[in-house]
This record gives sequence, C-alpha cells and structure tokens, in this order.
Amino acid sequence: MECTVEILSIGNELLLGNTFNTNATWIAERVTALGGKVRRITTVADNLNEISQAVSESIKRRPRILITTGGIGPTFDDMTLSGVAKALGLRLKLDNVAVAMIRQHYARRFPRRRISLTKPRLKMALIPSGGTPILNPVGTAPSVRINVNQIAIFCLPGVPREAKAIFTRTLAEIIRARARGRKFLEKWIEVRGIMESSLAPVLDALMRRSTGVYIKSHPRGIEAGGHPFIHLHFSMSSSNERKAERVLDQAVCEAIEGLSRLGGRVRQIE
Amino acid sequence: MECTVEILSIGNELLLGNTFNTNATWIAERVTALGGKVRRITTVADNLNEISQAVSESIKRRPRILITTGGIGPTFDDMTLSGVAKALGLRLKLDNVAVAMIRQHYARRFPRRRISLTKPRLKMALIPSGGTPILNPVGTAPSVRINVNQIAIFCLPGVPREAKAIFTRTLAEIIRARARGRKFLEKWIEVRGIMESSLAPVLDALMRRSTGVYIKSHPRGIEAGGHPFIHLHFSMSSSNERKAERVLDQAVCEAIEGLSRLGGRVRQIE
Repeated sequence: MECTVEILSIGNELLLGNTFNTNATWIAERVTALGGKVRRITTVADNLNEISQAVSESIKRRPRILITTGGIGPTFDDMTLSGVAKALGLRLKLDNVAVAMIRQHYARRFPRRRISLTKPRLKMALIPSGGTPILNPVGTAPSVRINVNQIAIFCLPGVPREAKAIFTRTLAEIIRARARGRKFLEKWIEVRGIMESSLAPVLDALMRRSTGVYIKSHPRGIEAGGHPFIHLHFSMSSSNERKAERVLDQAVCEAIEGLSRLGGRVRQIE
Repeated sequence: MECTVEILSIGNELLLGNTFNTNATWIAERVTALGGKVRRITTVADNLNEISQAVSESIKRRPRILITTGGIGPTFDDMTLSGVAKALGLRLKLDNVAVAMIRQHYARRFPRRRISLTKPRLKMALIPSGGTPILNPVGTAPSVRINVNQIAIFCLPGVPREAKAIFTRTLAEIIRARARGRKFLEKWIEVRGIMESSLAPVLDALMRRSTGVYIKSHPRGIEAGGHPFIHLHFSMSSSNERKAERVLDQAVCEAIEGLSRLGGRVRQIE
C-alpha cells in the first residue's frame, strides 16, 4: 500500500496571489523523496466552512496522511483547528501539554519577562479532542496530530521556517516508515530540434516497453530560430531500488538513442 | 453576486515538488486585480480519474468560473479535456475550428515545411462536445471553453507563457465583466516590537469598527534580539472604490496609531 499524502494549504494570501505556495512544493518534494506519494494539493481561505469542507472531502478520498499548513496562530482568522474539529465532529479542548509548550516557548524567548497567557495565546492550545500536540521547535504554536479512520492528520504552521522544522523533526520519519522502503528515482534529459508532438509516439512506445517508468515531457519554450526545446522527466517508484535504477537507466539510454535517430540533439541533465 | 473562481492545476511535476505552481499564483493575482474572488486552488496529477473527480467536485461547489491549467498538449498524459468530458458526461469530438488553429500554427511556425496532422497533433483538437476552442496566440494547443450550469470552464495550457497569453487575451475581460465594477484594494504595514499574540485583540477590535476591512497578520520571523517582525495586510473588496479607499485608509491610520501606543514601531510599506 502506497503512502498517499494530501496537502491542504490554508491562507487568504495564497488565493489573493500575494504569496507563492512554497510550503506545499517543499513538502511535496520531501514526501516524494521519502517514498510517499502526494495525490492532491488544495488551497482554501481562512474561512471555517471552507476549511471544514476541504478536510471532509479529503478524508473521503482516504489518503494515509493529510498535512495542513497555516491557520494555527493566535489571531481570530487562525481557524484550522476549528475547521478540522468541525469536519470530524470533535470539540476543541484546552490541552495541558500544549499550554506547557507555549509557556515554555515564551519563557525561553523572554527569560526576563513574565508573559501572561492571554486568550489569544491560550487559543493556540485549543486542539480537537483526542489530538496530540507536537512541539514547534522554532515558533509558538504547537502542531497537532489527529488520527481518524487510519488517516493521520497533521496541522503545521504557515510560517515556512516553522513548517519545515516540524516536518523534518516529526513527520519525515513517519512518512518514511509508512512508505516501507519505497524509493522514488528520477532522471532528466534535454531534447532540442524535435517538436513535442513528434516525440509523443516514441515516448509512448518506450513507456510500454519499460514497465514502471513514467516519462513526462515539459516543453520549455521555443529556442531562437523556432526550434523547440523540451525537458523529459523519467521517474519510477519502487521498493527494489537497484532493479529500478537499472530499468530507469535503460529507458533513458533507449530514449537518447531513439530521439537522436529522429534528428534530435539530446543530452542528460541533472 | 461575486465572481467566484476556482483554479485546477494539473500536472505530476507539481505533486512531485519539481515545479512551483507559479501559474496558479499568477492567475490568482490577476483574478483578484480584476475584481474576482479565487475561492480554491486544487492540484491533481495527470490522471483521468483524478482530473474528472476534481472537476466534478468543483462544479458541485458552483464557482462562476473554473480555470484549469496543464494537460492539453499532444502527449498521452495530456488528459485534461478527457477528464473534463468525463466529469460532465460529454464525448470528445474533433473540432474543425481547433484543427484549423493547429494547422495555421504549424504553417506560421514552419513556413517552408509541410507539417502533417498526425494523431498526436489532432489530439489537441479533440474537445468536449459543445465546447469552443480559443486561439492560443503563442503555442500549438488551443484553449477550450465549456459552459455548464452557468459555470464557465476554461482549459488553459500548462506552459506559463501560453497560459498568461490566453488569460490576458481572452479571460481577463470576461472576469472583469462578471465582477461588475467590484475592485480589490489593499495596503500593507510593517510592525516591529510587538508579538502577534499581542496584536490580535487590537486588530479584532479594529476590524469590528471598520466594516468590510479584512486585516491579516503575517509573522515574518524573528528579528535579531528576539523582537518579532510582522506584516499586516489590510484589504477590502467593494464596488464603491472611492468609499472603500477612505474606509481602508482610516483603518490603516487607526492601526498605526493603536499599535504605536502599544510600543510598536510601525510604518506603511507598499
């Protein structure tokens, strides 16, 4: 069973086009490298119904893991945990471990001041009942893990530095374990002088011969002089890494050979 | 009625984390500037069922416009139009206008060669029945418009240069018309020396006083010396631009005043 992952990005700024969704791409790259498979990325606004609906829909698709980013801070529009709770029919409750994490964070950051736990600060410790807080080593708001129907939901902060730290410290190992030794391998080649529509039948035939290899062409625009310029991505996911490497190398060699024969200028790139 | 828009990005490379989804962010920024409202961005793989499921789900949420990017080229894994057709219960049929667009594109690009319309090339003219091809001024694959239940679906290419050209040439005016004079206004201020959790109640109260203004705080990391550093985004969407500008300016002034009183160093940024 593959370790399928969905990512749910929460934040108005992503829908206004103010901010590139670098968190989702970073997480997707890491999940892939750890042997997992990202099946969908969804972005919604800081809106309780939107979040709750997106979580419900994701759960129906039954990924092994759902990772949310954003919306777990102290302000009124941080409503990811309410949205998750609503989707799952859970109540929010003040979690003592989360309170301790927040208290400790302020004590470490302001050793000479006493920071009182005001309502906005305690809000970060209100988590769906049954959930577990996860230490945020570089920020205030703890992350949260909630298990439901064999789906593990992780709510990460939106601040990239914090999301990355928690992913690396806690999620990476969980995804690696659930991927059970599956590895993702990839290679790139560059082709000049052949149009994508001429490549298509060659790649089709090659994929039919090379079990498990996926070849995707990415047209990168037109060279000066009207010549096309295409990157080909060869990838394979397998739990037999050495065999997969051989199969992938073979496919790349055959592609270079076949496309050169068609008059293309082909080279492997990293 | 707001001009709500959903964006559906199609491409394995986005889920592998190889490629930032710059198309979605660019489109979201443009839609917002034109007075529309992006309600959701979804990314799925080059997979018929995934695409069709995502389109069905989007249609159920009833946006006014659904924009897809990617998957309309000549290769086997370009399956956006099949996915849309499947979701809508339509057949694909060879569209003569699309064939003419493709033929003309090749004739212009290779004036001295006769490019035959092979199967992969004609594939780009197979569109859901009832759909209308839209000229791609800078690439081969035409875009497609399909109307269903008062939702306009536009399928754009994944190559950013092509997606942008078609959006600008065709979609921009449609979105502006559907937005009926609604404008999106925004301002940014920077606050140093106050924690986000201390800002929260001030912003809460300010939003309650300033009808229609949305204030979102973006913690931008910790300054040297442990001081927080936050960007505040003030935005408002309205069809009365001059009034909205006054209300937004007033809210920004009150925020600067209130946060300065709390000991923050505040300045307006662009």
